[in-house]
Amino acid sequence: MHFSERIKALQASPIRRLIPYADEAKARGRKVYHLNIGQPDIKTPDEYFEAIRAFRADTVAYGASQGLPALREAVSGYYHSWNLPYGPDDVCVTNGGSEALALAVQTICDPGDEILIPEPFYANYNAFAEAALAHVVPIPTRAEEGFHLPPAPVIEELVTPRTRAILISNPNNPTGTVCTPAELETLAGLAKKYELYLMADEVYREFTYDPDDGAFVSLGHLEDILDRVIMIDSISKRYSACGARVGCLAIKNREFMAQVLKLCQARLCVSTLEQVGAAALYQKTSKRYLEDVNREYRARRDTLYAALKEIPGVVCDRPKGAFYIMAKLPVDDSERFIIWMLQNFALDGETMMGAPGSGFYAVPNRGRDEMRLAYVLNRPSLVKAAAILKEAIAAYPGRLAALGA
Amino acid sequence: MHFSERIKALQASPIRRLIPYADEAKARGRKVYHLNIGQPDIKTPDEYFEAIRAFRADTVAYGASQGLPALREAVSGYYHSWNLPYGPDDVCVTNGGSEALALAVQTICDPGDEILIPEPFYANYNAFAEAALAHVVPIPTRAEEGFHLPPAPVIEELVTPRTRAILISNPNNPTGTVCTPAELETLAGLAKKYELYLMADEVYREFTYDPDDGAFVSLGHLEDILDRVIMIDSISKRYSACGARVGCLAIKNREFMAQVLKLCQARLCVSTLEQVGAAALYQKTSKRYLEDVNREYRARRDTLYAALKEIPGVVCDRPKGAFYIMAKLPVDDSERFIIWMLQNFALDGETMMGAPGSGFYAVPNRGRDEMRLAYVLNRPSLVKAAAILKEAIAAYPGRLAALGA
Repeated sequence: MHFSERIKALQASPIRRLIPYADEAKARGRKVYHLNIGQPDIKTPDEYFEAIRAFRADTVAYGASQGLPALREAVSGYYHSWNLPYGPDDVCVTNGGSEALALAVQTICDPGDEILIPEPFYANYNAFAEAALAHVVPIPTRAEEGFHLPPAPVIEELVTPRTRAILISNPNNPTGTVCTPAELETLAGLAKKYELYLMADEVYREFTYDPDDGAFVSLGHLEDILDRVIMIDSISKRYSACGARVGCLAIKNREFMAQVLKLCQARLCVSTLEQVGAAALYQKTSKRYLEDVNREYRARRDTLYAALKEIPGVVCDRPKGAFYIMAKLPVDDSERFIIWMLQNFALDGETMMGAPGSGFYAVPNRGRDEMRLAYVLNRPSLVKAAAILKEAIAAYPGRLAALGA
Repeated sequence: MHFSERIKALQASPIRRLIPYADEAKARGRKVYHLNIGQPDIKTPDEYFEAIRAFRADTVAYGASQGLPALREAVSGYYHSWNLPYGPDDVCVTNGGSEALALAVQTICDPGDEILIPEPFYANYNAFAEAALAHVVPIPTRAEEGFHLPPAPVIEELVTPRTRAILISNPNNPTGTVCTPAELETLAGLAKKYELYLMADEVYREFTYDPDDGAFVSLGHLEDILDRVIMIDSISKRYSACGARVGCLAIKNREFMAQVLKLCQARLCVSTLEQVGAAALYQKTSKRYLEDVNREYRARRDTLYAALKEIPGVVCDRPKGAFYIMAKLPVDDSERFIIWMLQNFALDGETMMGAPGSGFYAVPNRGRDEMRLAYVLNRPSLVKAAAILKEAIAAYPGRLAALGA
């Protein structure tokens, strides 16, 4: 039977396609430390479950396509606590940040249009662009420069008449980099000069770890470009509720909201009970929870970073935010190495898994010696995973001697 | 700011765009009988809420992109009870039937590809096609023929090299028509002859009302075309759980499943708790519940149909399934008439609302004198709504004298 060119061109998720190897390893009795996926072990606050258990209605009915008013109010209140200007009518509830991304791309891009994204980037950005037949144009960044943006002229060279937006993940998945205020100003200048949207994926907003760097600055703080900032958000990481699939798109632009709502109406609405749970998370979760979680992640970052620095041949920076480290490994190909570990390597019956770096690059063959490690497990587990990684590299037939110990 | 051509071309939902008028009427103290939207007042079975309340996990984690195994097992068991051959691996859980439709279109259509759909049809079919830059080619059907399909040669004339699929809603939204086995065989023959997919939206499978017509026959019962039947399904109507947003796509075609899963992986997964609730609905809801609901809808159909026949100038058939009646009204334009009712007409402080017929037609100006009425309210409410409709037609300035009483 016939398949569309668009679906054939789509890559299987570089993270999810390795799951069968992990399943096989587990079937053989291996314990696998999952540093490959941003699925934290942090507890979802009880407020979520309590609100859902307390929900009473005879019928679970369709809700408003833009989202339940109570949730949009709660999200707006949360934004105000960050001095972000989004009111309830500026918020559209989505099936996770994923749907917000997909909706935004469809609202601004026709086939052949382009979105600039600093590379490496979250692999699904490419999937959402390609599904809409738009193209990702990578803005190269370098590990040696902490994955920060190149100067404005370098970005400007990539702008074409088909460029519609610059999309940033801030704090960044997969690099952990946090944009400086100066970088945001550069982006704002480009957005004004070339009439571009700025898509701001800030699902890791709570997760910055170095207070000496100053408070986190959002693209939503730049008042003169608010009509073109598309805020992408989610409760998945903030409240450790990845499986709830509740996110939002926020924008100070009524015409944009009217356009995107046409797509939202077609899919009717987001799950009612999950929205009820999400509203409770926004309204009732104590500041203390987010502070505790931040402290825990910071400690995990420090633990994993320290352990990685002990591995001969591994090169990485201490990330400033999110919960990922993008590490260069002394191996021929990190995807091959991961599969090899799952099939052949164990330390005390345990093995580990990262995400292959190449999955975060659009340019072929880039990032093949990199691996994204998510510090979403407790510290003892991270220490064990790093110890496994160290021994595995030493034993791996594809180890690069030049970089090795 | 720039918007994509695709989003500008998209129509606001003809059902949802009238909601503000209803809200205004309610703000003025009017009670509004909602026959405009397929949102039943039927109780969602307790099993749904009980399973969700019983869910225990520290963290609401990402689930499998294809859906929770327990739910896929449960859906497969349900299909087997209908002698439909879908195993757990043939099922992909989606955000309602809506996402299943969107995924199917993207999997088989590139820009400019065509999908044949008997007209009138569910308006969002057009939205999902257009969002993917595919086009709906309507197969004309006539109220006078009970909205049944025209003979094969008439459909064949519409097939082009860009035709990828024929999409049917069976039982039909908005007409209530149920395909005969002969019609399904016609479609199967065309699918084989022209290498087309058959998309079978069967979310109203439980809702047929005339046992003398024989048991409901599904496209999934035609064994020789199973590799090209894309089954679209949902718990929304079956278990009156529209706000849960749990549906599925099922197909006996491993390559298709592998392709569509690439898109599913990009959006990660469907809400965990809603899937837990849905699994319980499939596994634990008694046959009695579905039988009682069927009996209730049949009684409602008979009540609304009888009441409509009493209104001078109203023309409609007694539908065989789903829970809609597509009625011709003696008015200039049913959308204008609906807005007029909401703004100007009440009987004892109450008014009513249907869905404008034109929203179910791709061909401009078709269906302007039709209205879709959903019999999703209890019988006394339907009687009142029909009484309001009768008086409103008599009072409406745009009443067509030729057809009027």
